[in-house]
Amino acid sequence: MDIFSEEYARQLDAKDPLKGFRDHFVLEDNNLVYLDGNSLGVLPRNTATYMEQVVKEEWGRGLIRSWNTGWYERPQKIAAQIALLIGAHADEVIVTDSTSVNLFKLAYTALKLQQGRKGIVSDSLNFPSDIYLLQGLAEIFGNQHDIRLAQSHDGITVSHEEIENQLGNDTALLTLSHVVFKSAFMYNMKDITSLSHQKGAMVLWDLSHSVGAVPIDLNDAHVDLAVGCTYKYLNGGPGSPAFLYVRKDLQEKLKSPIWGWFGQNNPFDFNLQYQPAPGIERFMAGTPPMLSLSMLEPSLNIFLDAGMDRLRNKSVQQANYFIQLFQHHLAPLGFSMGSPIKEDQRGSHISLRHPEGYRICQALIEPQKDSPVVIPDFRQPDNIRLGITPLYTRYHDLFRAVIKMKTIVDQHWYTAFSIKREKVT
Amino acid sequence: MDIFSEEYARQLDAKDPLKGFRDHFVLEDNNLVYLDGNSLGVLPRNTATYMEQVVKEEWGRGLIRSWNTGWYERPQKIAAQIALLIGAHADEVIVTDSTSVNLFKLAYTALKLQQGRKGIVSDSLNFPSDIYLLQGLAEIFGNQHDIRLAQSHDGITVSHEEIENQLGNDTALLTLSHVVFKSAFMYNMKDITSLSHQKGAMVLWDLSHSVGAVPIDLNDAHVDLAVGCTYKYLNGGPGSPAFLYVRKDLQEKLKSPIWGWFGQNNPFDFNLQYQPAPGIERFMAGTPPMLSLSMLEPSLNIFLDAGMDRLRNKSVQQANYFIQLFQHHLAPLGFSMGSPIKEDQRGSHISLRHPEGYRICQALIEPQKDSPVVIPDFRQPDNIRLGITPLYTRYHDLFRAVIKMKTIVDQHWYTAFSIKREKVT
Repeated sequence: MDIFSEEYARQLDAKDPLKGFRDHFVLEDNNLVYLDGNSLGVLPRNTATYMEQVVKEEWGRGLIRSWNTGWYERPQKIAAQIALLIGAHADEVIVTDSTSVNLFKLAYTALKLQQGRKGIVSDSLNFPSDIYLLQGLAEIFGNQHDIRLAQSHDGITVSHEEIENQLGNDTALLTLSHVVFKSAFMYNMKDITSLSHQKGAMVLWDLSHSVGAVPIDLNDAHVDLAVGCTYKYLNGGPGSPAFLYVRKDLQEKLKSPIWGWFGQNNPFDFNLQYQPAPGIERFMAGTPPMLSLSMLEPSLNIFLDAGMDRLRNKSVQQANYFIQLFQHHLAPLGFSMGSPIKEDQRGSHISLRHPEGYRICQALIEPQKDSPVVIPDFRQPDNIRLGITPLYTRYHDLFRAVIKMKTIVDQHWYTAFSIKREKVT
Repeated sequence: MDIFSEEYARQLDAKDPLKGFRDHFVLEDNNLVYLDGNSLGVLPRNTATYMEQVVKEEWGRGLIRSWNTGWYERPQKIAAQIALLIGAHADEVIVTDSTSVNLFKLAYTALKLQQGRKGIVSDSLNFPSDIYLLQGLAEIFGNQHDIRLAQSHDGITVSHEEIENQLGNDTALLTLSHVVFKSAFMYNMKDITSLSHQKGAMVLWDLSHSVGAVPIDLNDAHVDLAVGCTYKYLNGGPGSPAFLYVRKDLQEKLKSPIWGWFGQNNPFDFNLQYQPAPGIERFMAGTPPMLSLSMLEPSLNIFLDAGMDRLRNKSVQQANYFIQLFQHHLAPLGFSMGSPIKEDQRGSHISLRHPEGYRICQALIEPQKDSPVVIPDFRQPDNIRLGITPLYTRYHDLFRAVIKMKTIVDQHWYTAFSIKREKVT
């Protein structure tokens, strides 16, 4: 059979052992091809039901009593589910605050522990606000630190040699995104962590674009610190709270700079002297946003049921299928790969580059002439970023996205759209 | 008519011009007397409906597109409603993070602006984690600051003289709770702010126990900075995000220490050098928890409809009624006032003290012998804290609470309960 045919895509879906998981999500509009689950995951069916229970029963009827019948333990309970996805122990993970605030807290305490060392290493492909937070921390510490960014030579990858060149015997902290937000380049976490430890530097991984996308084993890689986002692949809903990881043996040595209510040992003693909680809870701050936080549980149950290895397997197969279609249909039209070809260097999203990338994105989102609505996202200057979320992405979705991109360029549909840029997450 | 009779309580309710507002809340259980709205406000009816819309329509159907059709502006939109309750301009308030994180950010930047001045003043009645955060900040700044706590001589109030004695020409920052969490003592915000400014100290008010409880006019008092909580009187739901206020003319001089994604100017340029947003948005950090945040809007609409002056008027009347009942029924049984008697020194909750306070609280919560379930909260060592939330508290609720307290002590019901303390928010 012609591997470029629509029928072939449908056959791949029919044979997909994970196809049933799509039914767990609210995806009723068959005219919608959603390839932005790496920015905001789709609503799980059980979440809608569970939200009603949390709002009407737990808050509405239980009122303040619900703190003692589940709410207090929920950040730990949900963290224990996330721990299973990232190769950590339950008592090494907590759900709290945003990724920004968590990165701030952990990078601060790492720099404090490593005082005397003045180097901070990251890379030029990192998510910009991860760099902003480091710049802010450098200012807090009196501008004694030198922030060195390993450079990418192709705009897609960063070599391990480049990281090694930036690391020195004065490096306090190396912090990188495990999977890079734009190109989906994925580091070998274990190798990089080991490289960093050899120089005496601590390592903080940002898992925002890798948790729920690829298997992660923080303990196996002996990672010190990590943070991550839950509203992308983990489908926690818009702005659902983030998580952080601190390896068990480091917890007593580290302390959040934000000496908050939920990080205190025995907060209900109302003692006036701060005493950090003994475990991972010391990295919490204020009261967690319980409605947003609760919504993570139904989605995490689906992940644990599907299993990260099976999901990764499907993600790689779908990406390779997509790349075949790209090479056949899109490469001749001026599209190029903005992501690594090698699957072991790639997360679960793919960026395609095109000089008209921004207008092509707008045309994809617009329904026209029987074409589906295709939702990717756009990343400067010319990246069309497509997220493969194997719990609910179909091969047929990828097929339709490629055919629409081809048509948009072939038939100059994109010229109907403005080059003025709006916000797109 | 006998002012201590049940009939009198019912008449007060019948004549209450705000009685209709109770219908906006989910309070179906007539056997429940909820006097903990100052810890966790009750669920507004419209919130349950709105949550369904936000989850199913905005997230479920709108998906990532909802960021461009309302989510980005929502923290500002809700802040503009809160601004009306606290006497601020819309562009001086933003909804973000938790009270702890907001206090951290604002106290940090105030201490930074005031470097050279080494005094930090607060009081011994402040919420403990407000003090913890100051202790943590002192450590960040190299332990050069001296944290001075104005003392309370009666455990209930703090005199203005006591504050004045702690303020010096080297004071960088004065930070106080406008209404104290345990005793409900309320400062004269304008006088204290003026006192502080005379010494060159900046002022940061924690409005957690006063927003939605008493009228506040930050601009009139020329307040520099404020933070506040939204899940107490404002009924935002468990852990709903907090707000912060920075007076307009100070915004450009101050900068959050957490250089996050949402505080950046033009975050979607993906520039690698942090540039704070020009206005109040610079004090945001990561992506806001949109579900928890959205739930504030229905409740704030009710507040704006009722008006803070009318709510305060009812709150004072209810408190005075309650104090009459206390004097008649409870004072003879060993209860004492843990709150100021003078209404202009008191917020909207009342603490009663009793040596058996903890067990009395447990007995109140327990349904027994036709008595209602009465939910207050307990605060160490012996405070039974009762929140008056005039949007939904009835005079008859206060009557029933007093009668149950009387019965619990009269008939020794409390002796059936454990003295072992559990968490109660």
